[in-house]
Amino acid sequence: MTEPRPSAVTTGTLHLIPVGLSEQPINNWLPASAQQKAGALAHYIAENAKTARAFLKQLNLTQPLQTINIHTLSSRADDTMIRQWLTPLLQGEDMGLVSEAGCPAVADPGARVVALAHQLKITVKPWVGPSSIVLGLMASGLEGQRFAFHGYAPVKPDARKLQLKQWEQISQRQKQSQLLIETPYRNVAMFQSLIETLAPQTRLCVARDLTGEHEWVKTRTIADWRRQPTPDLASWPTLFLFQA
Amino acid sequence: MTEPRPSAVTTGTLHLIPVGLSEQPINNWLPASAQQKAGALAHYIAENAKTARAFLKQLNLTQPLQTINIHTLSSRADDTMIRQWLTPLLQGEDMGLVSEAGCPAVADPGARVVALAHQLKITVKPWVGPSSIVLGLMASGLEGQRFAFHGYAPVKPDARKLQLKQWEQISQRQKQSQLLIETPYRNVAMFQSLIETLAPQTRLCVARDLTGEHEWVKTRTIADWRRQPTPDLASWPTLFLFQA
Repeated sequence: MTEPRPSAVTTGTLHLIPVGLSEQPINNWLPASAQQKAGALAHYIAENAKTARAFLKQLNLTQPLQTINIHTLSSRADDTMIRQWLTPLLQGEDMGLVSEAGCPAVADPGARVVALAHQLKITVKPWVGPSSIVLGLMASGLEGQRFAFHGYAPVKPDARKLQLKQWEQISQRQKQSQLLIETPYRNVAMFQSLIETLAPQTRLCVARDLTGEHEWVKTRTIADWRRQPTPDLASWPTLFLFQA
Repeated sequence: MTEPRPSAVTTGTLHLIPVGLSEQPINNWLPASAQQKAGALAHYIAENAKTARAFLKQLNLTQPLQTINIHTLSSRADDTMIRQWLTPLLQGEDMGLVSEAGCPAVADPGARVVALAHQLKITVKPWVGPSSIVLGLMASGLEGQRFAFHGYAPVKPDARKLQLKQWEQISQRQKQSQLLIETPYRNVAMFQSLIETLAPQTRLCVARDLTGEHEWVKTRTIADWRRQPTPDLASWPTLFLFQA
């Protein structure tokens, strides 16, 4: 039961709060002001309530954790439900949006919430925090003036091969870096597909466990990678970047 | 005159340090650990030495500012010169790389330095900091699972129109958000081109002065933008994002 919006109330702000990519201390990856703001919010929408609570435990909270209201953005949440969650904003309170890892609304379902906030004319405030896409691109040494993030490549070998070849052609034609991710247990298979499919002179960057204890970033040509042992990628989130 | 590399020395790390996008306090946009590391480095490569010094003045430095060695990465710097600059790394010292604004090696010339570091088998460490690309994407509510950053669009009207149309087609076909920047004095002209060229139902996000005092992020359909007064964009860096 929500009250009708009183016309005199200034709407709240939807704060987009990045969370960690790894277990490292929060001062490694979140600016102090973002920590302070995140610790002061009473309402959250989270991709995963459990990891959201683990994030909140790292902050100085202005109210007890169990009194913070966390909605889970599951695939079953429809627009009507999400609009209902956003009611505190219309009543002048701030809210937070968090992803399971990294920046909300980038490579996660949070963009739906932000899109609805824009429809409701709610101010959204993005905070600085870890994005594996940007960290990987910085560390790759590949073309950073033009790049495309594709999410996941197809899983089936033929479709995957075709897609990688197509991205390689675009990369060469447009001088555009190509970025993709894979679920950790398939990382080694993806690495094998990349070194088998791409041209010898194409540069491939493997960016493993960014911000984490096992962070490891190497850029080599495909020809060089073929001469190296396969890197140990099975246990950590890994971003793959290449440029033809 | 550099000494030959002693085989027993462990090479240093090239730290990729983001700098501010705006005049706001550093605790708003740089994690404490990144500030600490940046303040402890004696050697820098910078896109612009003046803005690099302005950044360093915001830190607790472990040595006087005037004793910090800053190389300027101008367009005249060739690979031989950059390799020479990287010598302290081969001697076991750490170095920093900074852009004029935001993340080094993303939408700036720093990628050349990182590529050479990889060739020399030097470890590169990307630190979390502000990227207008990621902040804008988060705040746009547009598709965050697939996106392309294009840098600048062509300036000439016909070529620009053709290019925008082409990106719109790609956006629709691949469900991929399209991101571009413009130099501030051309922002209003770019905004006009976008609302004239794109289809009425395409969503356009205008993300102005991210992290700054005049931050303003709105996403509307082209049809809606056409009914609004032109936003005030001429004085601030602005990112344009759209999705068909």
